[in-house]
Amino acid sequence: MSAQVGPSVAASERLARMRAARPLVHAITNYVAMDVTANALLAAGAAPAMIHAREEAPAFAAIADALTINIGTLSAEWLASMTEAAEAAGAAGKPWTLDPVAVGATAFRRQAGQALAARAPTVIRGNASEIMALAGRDSAGRGVDSGDAIQDAEAAAVALAQQTGGVVAATGATDFVTDGQRRAWIENGAEIMTQVTALGCALSALAAAFVAASADDPFEGTVAALAFYGVCGEVAADGCDRAPGTFRVRFIDALASVDADQVAQTGRIRVA
Amino acid sequence: MSAQVGPSVAASERLARMRAARPLVHAITNYVAMDVTANALLAAGAAPAMIHAREEAPAFAAIADALTINIGTLSAEWLASMTEAAEAAGAAGKPWTLDPVAVGATAFRRQAGQALAARAPTVIRGNASEIMALAGRDSAGRGVDSGDAIQDAEAAAVALAQQTGGVVAATGATDFVTDGQRRAWIENGAEIMTQVTALGCALSALAAAFVAASADDPFEGTVAALAFYGVCGEVAADGCDRAPGTFRVRFIDALASVDADQVAQTGRIRVA
Amino acid sequence: MSAQVGPSVAASERLARMRAARPLVHAITNYVAMDVTANALLAAGAAPAMIHAREEAPAFAAIADALTINIGTLSAEWLASMTEAAEAAGAAGKPWTLDPVAVGATAFRRQAGQALAARAPTVIRGNASEIMALAGRDSAGRGVDSGDAIQDAEAAAVALAQQTGGVVAATGATDFVTDGQRRAWIENGAEIMTQVTALGCALSALAAAFVAASADDPFEGTVAALAFYGVCGEVAADGCDRAPGTFRVRFIDALASVDADQVAQTGRIRVA
Repeated sequence: MSAQVGPSVAASERLARMRAARPLVHAITNYVAMDVTANALLAAGAAPAMIHAREEAPAFAAIADALTINIGTLSAEWLASMTEAAEAAGAAGKPWTLDPVAVGATAFRRQAGQALAARAPTVIRGNASEIMALAGRDSAGRGVDSGDAIQDAEAAAVALAQQTGGVVAATGATDFVTDGQRRAWIENGAEIMTQVTALGCALSALAAAFVAASADDPFEGTVAALAFYGVCGEVAADGCDRAPGTFRVRFIDALASVDADQVAQTGRIRVA
Repeated sequence: MSAQVGPSVAASERLARMRAARPLVHAITNYVAMDVTANALLAAGAAPAMIHAREEAPAFAAIADALTINIGTLSAEWLASMTEAAEAAGAAGKPWTLDPVAVGATAFRRQAGQALAARAPTVIRGNASEIMALAGRDSAGRGVDSGDAIQDAEAAAVALAQQTGGVVAATGATDFVTDGQRRAWIENGAEIMTQVTALGCALSALAAAFVAASADDPFEGTVAALAFYGVCGEVAADGCDRAPGTFRVRFIDALASVDADQVAQTGRIRVA
Repeated sequence: MSAQVGPSVAASERLARMRAARPLVHAITNYVAMDVTANALLAAGAAPAMIHAREEAPAFAAIADALTINIGTLSAEWLASMTEAAEAAGAAGKPWTLDPVAVGATAFRRQAGQALAARAPTVIRGNASEIMALAGRDSAGRGVDSGDAIQDAEAAAVALAQQTGGVVAATGATDFVTDGQRRAWIENGAEIMTQVTALGCALSALAAAFVAASADDPFEGTVAALAFYGVCGEVAADGCDRAPGTFRVRFIDALASVDADQVAQTGRIRVA
């Protein structure tokens, strides 16, 4: 698909596919992100379901179209569910995305992130510090913010993709995506996105919706999710200077209103 | 009350009663719904308190004016608290509502929903698929969305109401309410309500506030809650095409600003 | 600092310090408050991280710049983490704030509140009923709302501050702050703040950010946090009559846009 057309047009087609499929995304995510993640998925055209208990998470992972696992507010109990759900998704041939929130912050988090990454997620999405920490590199992250630049994370992302066999996305002012061979950079987005909590988490869930509808090429599906998200950020940021509350509302609106044409026309994607 | 006046006027009087009482609603609800549920209750004129631990949930259920139980993000531990809180509410003569989110999705959820429904909730509110699944009928629901039409759920709702001795509300494009004998249909609401997460969950909590102030007739209290909610949806939806973020904000505003007169004038309720 | 200048100017300087430091605030807070707390911290210029598991909460408390503990949706498991995190923060010399939500409502909550208060929180912030209940006085609170006036809580606040060795803030229409010796009253704020859930919880977290950057004088840091918050409430409330949804959005905006000059000019602080 992307061989014949420009990368923004390809992304716009992936968006249309996702909306046509209306994938049911099973989310085992953190408490902070639940509300915005569910609303982002709904607005963008997917269907969310948050189910975490060990008694049912594996069964539901096999029913849903995709799974997203986010370790933001991790506990030992939830980690057990995440692990079993990831296994069930894998066994059922369903794609899943991993968001290794603040993975470098504590030993507990590092071990959990590595154990989940070892179960072959379809996509790993984090900020530069998280991707570097998950790849075993030194990183400057302390909490959930990145202390590192995307450029510094590129080699780590490629190594991690080769190691896991999946797609790795390091997002920031510029987003970087790789499947270990191909590489893409997305220049969309807006600075104010960093002033609203859990937008990265919601993006990881949205990437699950995109790859559910892009089984032929999760790399392209991930690039499309990031480009769409960035375009929505730009649309919403217009006139929202120092107004993160208003921006968040408009961003949810943009996820519903931005269409494939806008992505084709304003997506700024470079591929290599 | 409703014998002398039209059903919309009756609903408007139930709204006024609820606001005058400012009921304290004890919510054991899901993580996604907590924020919007608390804000919806506050805006509408009730007082929310989210308390779930087994060590205190039964004691608090006896203190509060009403209880709402929602199985959205269920776990075995929370289910134990829900069960004990429902018992305590029943023993203290406090009304409680049950929201059987995605009850047909897994065996764990089906058993939990049935066990809670067997404890005589004052009101059960779900979408068509949830009501059908809880009544033991085949349903098309997979996640939290309904795959069934309200019409198909009416017989299931009547049967479930007769079985539990409570009120059952199946909500959707048209809402259907029954106490096993009486039936009502509410035609208010807006399509965009389905694009915001947990509005059904918040409605189940609001129904608890209404029945707390309508102990004489929980059926009428439930009808009033649904009509009020639908009118608020219509007020908020005006000008919000493809803007679910803005709609959510305006919907919370409407819960605070819509008054009894508006419900009396714009409520579209049929009774049989 | 406050000896030379008026209290509003002193507060404005504390705000500037907080923003310059961008403190990382570790929050163990309730499920309802997580989203608005994280967004309030981000908007105001701090960095939030929600981490609650016993396996990592103590380690993270030592890494972060400040900790906030909120017992809103308490459980035995979380209480254990809170206790260990408070200890770790204390051992690492990091300030921490305690929000004793609805502490008088149940025996479980009273014991938890007292046990945490005994671990020397830098700041305790609650409404009048919570401060009175925590100080062992009779209070009229039933749920999360205060049934008592601030004036009635002042003696309890002073006693509690002397007992814990920390700062105590009882907030309401007027806020009262004491370190057991000094006393301050802040008259900023807006009535509609009580119609949005968890704004008190978010304030307790923001107080942690302020005292992280005011180690020289946590009393002054707390006064500044309250004055800033109240000024933001006034800015946001303008034109939001009966519109709590819109108010919440504007309030987050105000946390980002209100600057030190506005606090210096419109803060209404009395000290004694």
